Amino acid sequence: MARKVGIIGAGHVGADVAFSLVTQGLCDVIVLLDENEPKAASQALELRDMASLTASRVQVIANDYSELQDADVLVIAVGPKTLQREDRLEELAETRVAVREVIPRVIASGFSGVIVNITNPCDVITQIIQQTSGFPDSQVFGTGTSLDTARMKRVVGEFFGFDPKSVTGYVMGEHGESQFVAWSTVTLGGRPVAELAGDRDVDWAKMDDAVRGGGWEILQGKGWTSFGIATATARLVDAILSDANSVYPVSALDEELGVYIGQPAVIGKKGIVQTLQPELTAYEGVAYHACARVIAAALKSEK
Amino acid sequence: MARKVGIIGAGHVGADVAFSLVTQGLCDVIVLLDENEPKAASQALELRDMASLTASRVQVIANDYSELQDADVLVIAVGPKTLQREDRLEELAETRVAVREVIPRVIASGFSGVIVNITNPCDVITQIIQQTSGFPDSQVFGTGTSLDTARMKRVVGEFFGFDPKSVTGYVMGEHGESQFVAWSTVTLGGRPVAELAGDRDVDWAKMDDAVRGGGWEILQGKGWTSFGIATATARLVDAILSDANSVYPVSALDEELGVYIGQPAVIGKKGIVQTLQPELTAYEGVAYHACARVIAAALKSEK
Amino acid sequence: MARKVGIIGAGHVGADVAFSLVTQGLCDVIVLLDENEPKAASQALELRDMASLTASRVQVIANDYSELQDADVLVIAVGPKTLQREDRLEELAETRVAVREVIPRVIASGFSGVIVNITNPCDVITQIIQQTSGFPDSQVFGTGTSLDTARMKRVVGEFFGFDPKSVTGYVMGEHGESQFVAWSTVTLGGRPVAELAGDRDVDWAKMDDAVRGGGWEILQGKGWTSFGIATATARLVDAILSDANSVYPVSALDEELGVYIGQPAVIGKKGIVQTLQPELTAYEGVAYHACARVIAAALKSEK
Amino acid sequence: MARKVGIIGAGHVGADVAFSLVTQGLCDVIVLLDENEPKAASQALELRDMASLTASRVQVIANDYSELQDADVLVIAVGPKTLQREDRLEELAETRVAVREVIPRVIASGFSGVIVNITNPCDVITQIIQQTSGFPDSQVFGTGTSLDTARMKRVVGEFFGFDPKSVTGYVMGEHGESQFVAWSTVTLGGRPVAELAGDRDVDWAKMDDAVRGGGWEILQGKGWTSFGIATATARLVDAILSDANSVYPVSALDEELGVYIGQPAVIGKKGIVQTLQPELTAYEGVAYHACARVIAAALKSEK
Repeated sequence: MARKVGIIGAGHVGADVAFSLVTQGLCDVIVLLDENEPKAASQALELRDMASLTASRVQVIANDYSELQDADVLVIAVGPKTLQREDRLEELAETRVAVREVIPRVIASGFSGVIVNITNPCDVITQIIQQTSGFPDSQVFGTGTSLDTARMKRVVGEFFGFDPKSVTGYVMGEHGESQFVAWSTVTLGGRPVAELAGDRDVDWAKMDDAVRGGGWEILQGKGWTSFGIATATARLVDAILSDANSVYPVSALDEELGVYIGQPAVIGKKGIVQTLQPELTAYEGVAYHACARVIAAALKSEK
Repeated sequence: MARKVGIIGAGHVGADVAFSLVTQGLCDVIVLLDENEPKAASQALELRDMASLTASRVQVIANDYSELQDADVLVIAVGPKTLQREDRLEELAETRVAVREVIPRVIASGFSGVIVNITNPCDVITQIIQQTSGFPDSQVFGTGTSLDTARMKRVVGEFFGFDPKSVTGYVMGEHGESQFVAWSTVTLGGRPVAELAGDRDVDWAKMDDAVRGGGWEILQGKGWTSFGIATATARLVDAILSDANSVYPVSALDEELGVYIGQPAVIGKKGIVQTLQPELTAYEGVAYHACARVIAAALKSEK
Repeated sequence: MARKVGIIGAGHVGADVAFSLVTQGLCDVIVLLDENEPKAASQALELRDMASLTASRVQVIANDYSELQDADVLVIAVGPKTLQREDRLEELAETRVAVREVIPRVIASGFSGVIVNITNPCDVITQIIQQTSGFPDSQVFGTGTSLDTARMKRVVGEFFGFDPKSVTGYVMGEHGESQFVAWSTVTLGGRPVAELAGDRDVDWAKMDDAVRGGGWEILQGKGWTSFGIATATARLVDAILSDANSVYPVSALDEELGVYIGQPAVIGKKGIVQTLQPELTAYEGVAYHACARVIAAALKSEK
Repeated sequence: MARKVGIIGAGHVGADVAFSLVTQGLCDVIVLLDENEPKAASQALELRDMASLTASRVQVIANDYSELQDADVLVIAVGPKTLQREDRLEELAETRVAVREVIPRVIASGFSGVIVNITNPCDVITQIIQQTSGFPDSQVFGTGTSLDTARMKRVVGEFFGFDPKSVTGYVMGEHGESQFVAWSTVTLGGRPVAELAGDRDVDWAKMDDAVRGGGWEILQGKGWTSFGIATATARLVDAILSDANSVYPVSALDEELGVYIGQPAVIGKKGIVQTLQPELTAYEGVAYHACARVIAAALKSEK
């Protein structure tokens, strides 16, 4: 009955995922894990300081892998030591080592829930986690382009003066430089965004750049990014815990191409229920395949 | 600064709108009005009984029209005395009288906010309210097909096994028998619903009926409907109060056709910011015009 | 992992408990049961109409007792056919029959969670449920004076001009005419309410009456009461589901006196963790024992 | 109508206050200000990335003091450059300069709302803000011992195995080393905590230390503290915006002693409605006066 969520990585991202979950009361128990144990213990203590100020109680435990045994979801947010890199693939050498260290400990705990990976380069690391864990691919997915999609909705919503929540559509492909806005899926109030633009001279490439560069811009100013990804992850965790079968853009296995890659998928208590590849335009299809090649190359390089 | 919401009608619908607002803390003050003053006073008292059990405080006042003077939103939920009619237009004779009695009292209070009408037949009554009040048409709208759209999302979501929240699209036209699902706007995860159905033999007309008949089915079992409409109204009130510019299907003036009718519109602090007529198929266009004629005829009949 | 809540009784109270749970996303699955099956089906349908309008998904099932098998909590809100009685004990003859019919069906389903009873007369019926079910007494409790306590906080908070949430203290004893405000437990900002009153001439007996008569006053105006009790019940359900060990006034077994009676208790996933009888004044002690006698007499009469 | 909150300081604390407000939808517009403008802009951008993932819309603006003109609340979270100091008073030399720079800009904007100060040493800085601003003392208060009180509830709740939300009572005095738990105000379920302890051998001084040292412990592990104070501040902001008249422990002016100091107070739309000094024991009274002297000395030193 208790909704239990493990989080590996008590840095900015992992801690803010926990902060968002506790603030919203979206689970009952959080297990916070980090190789820096005092850091995880501190984060847990501070999250427990919130207990008298929130509507629902969330208990927070730190540094005990055995507590993962009956957890429903495990969020992996192991960060690199250096945050300001220009390309997410550069982080690979560092984070793959970290991930390969923690997964055996997860398996040893008896954990049998759904793994949601945030660690970058997200698509590649998610695939490494799936392979290392031996879990079915439906049970392991990455946050992929969920944050990029939120950014696209912010950019498009603000451009047209609408609530970003009213924008539908997806950013797809790599959670990295090669990602693309699948403009053919973007609508506002049932109207394709291009049609809605009407006579306005829209610089779509510039909008694409604003979406892709959103993270970099934030990184430059504050040194890391966490609020957006933490909020998106909290929604994914909620979809799993409530077996909602909600559609979110995530990094899921594309069986045909053999890589984890950002695409809309239905999320339920066992992870990915099904992927929902939208009908892409020829241009978008090319972009999607280009992303897959970037991811595959990175995956290969790392062996 | 205080977000103040007036509600005229303390029956099932009006009271459940208030219950939903208080439960979610979506406003700061509610003014509950009903010609049956003891009823409004009772509802207010009971809503105030919730004060120690909710996260944010909402104050509830009853039976004082002068309190509308600085209200931001006014929800009109004046019900007919008989609930189980087969056609919403039949209610017109009764509810138009009620509405024409209350609007002058609203005007006399100095109210200058946005009017959201729920009273049925929704499209016709909304237009009567706009005309009686003399308010700009952007400042008066009806809940229209917002509830029917929520029903469509429930029917489609459950059919495909998806979270209804992940269904996009609109029911349009009359909030009544002539309404139609604008299937061309309905998508799931960026894919048109027809395409998603694939080889499955979908009886779309039956789904249409399930949407249209949803209210009647509920009415038969419990004697009235209120949870769905109250929840939809709470979202509309929130969009106004937070100046969100969110898109919702509502009953707004179609300037060309000269009637209030269900269509997607952008909702902000001054009411309707703009309507967003989706590109309809020829079939849907015919249905839309048929709705407009039904509404126009009812409007004419009532003079 | 899924938080599953059964509700027996789809009338005003049971349906509003469900409405509150769905609005707040406090559980994942609701099983709604009523001898009037079309009514339960209608309520469920309407609750499902909310699915696209709320943040978290809650699935709602109707009329299937076998679904209780893995439910965590069961709320019993079986109402009498006539609502406006002057004394809650009068309802006993009618509701005890109803409760004795449903409990065997609950047992047959294999349900092994916590039972929260709302049906009046609450203390007596809770005890009958515990006896009929054979469940440990910690696993069965009633909403008791939780609503009366919320009313006391409203009355005291409004009198002093404070947020009712900032009032602490309890109404204890029978959820009925003999109940009493345990004034010695009532504080505001760490100050006893009597001290806070200072030189003001407070008519405490009148305040007592306002608390005790709150339900009757609401009943007269709207014909039933439900918002307050539904909200209080939602908080109790949340405390169970999140294993919060929160203190609420409920109807729990007083082992010494041998009756279920309103008192503060710690609520966790297995029901009552412990009762927390405050140190009462002599006057309050007498009132408490008088309540126990009223309940015991009613319990005896019904055999 | 729009609930507008200014925040000066876009570091960990200020940004997490904003994150909490946006996550909960507790206001409509946030104005984020920092002398490091790129940092404030980044935080704002990231908060806007959340817009499609939350229930209610919150707009976020950065680096424009003129936007404070019609803000309802201003949170001051100007941090020192070095976080890990052993005594909060040491920060004074640095933060008083920062505060004296920003207040004239706030006044110049035409801001006329309530100021909530977080900047440490909280009591002293709050008084400097009040003096520099020339605002009535009711319109300026500090978060004071609100976080320490939350810590006390966590420590006591966890010790007795109860939900910290069910613990009532206050930490009072200086938000710093001289603070004290006013144990005479601490109750659980209407029972004084000492009585509840019964035969258990409770080391109260150790508990005092756990409360006082909570922040330092967190600081050591993660390098700063923010989740607790951000959550407490969000509740205070909500109390102001909804004119709730809720009681919270804050740093308010003690007129007799002439210093801002932590004590329970009623918070409404104009700030402090009244302070609520609990009847302290002789021991607690001495501790309170000792705190006042520490604060007064610091205040004097800084001139």
